[in-house]
Amino acid sequence: MAEINFEIVEHVVVLSEGNKGWKKEVNLISWNGREPKYDIRDWAPDHSKMGKGVTLSEDEMQILLRAFSNKS
Amino acid sequence: MAEINFEIVEHVVVLSEGNKGWKKEVNLISWNGREPKYDIRDWAPDHSKMGKGVTLSEDEMQILLRAFSNKS
Repeated sequence: MAEINFEIVEHVVVLSEGNKGWKKEVNLISWNGREPKYDIRDWAPDHSKMGKGVTLSEDEMQILLRAFSNKS
Repeated sequence: MAEINFEIVEHVVVLSEGNKGWKKEVNLISWNGREPKYDIRDWAPDHSKMGKGVTLSEDEMQILLRAFSNKS
């Protein structure tokens, strides 16, 4: 499997904690040196392993936030 | 592969549109008849196929929204 380089630029928030200390987190992550994106994903303690997740660009995150601010 | 039943309870917002009309969407979805959760995922046109994504409970979504409202 090809190696994936990533750098967690900013820890935004922990959404929940699940089995064996895995946490669902929102982070700002640069993948393979590219422009950082928001990332919602499960992580093992100390970020040694990651689960599946989605990445959102700044624009996508703003659209999400605006949609929910209009809902409430 | 086992069948997954889901019902899109609410279309919240389209975040972006990508290749071949696939869209990254936020929906409120009930999976296998369970309590609906927020779901961020890529979808083919007419929702005939889905990509990978994450589901967020109401609590997790509220934590996310609060984190970003405190950021700005």
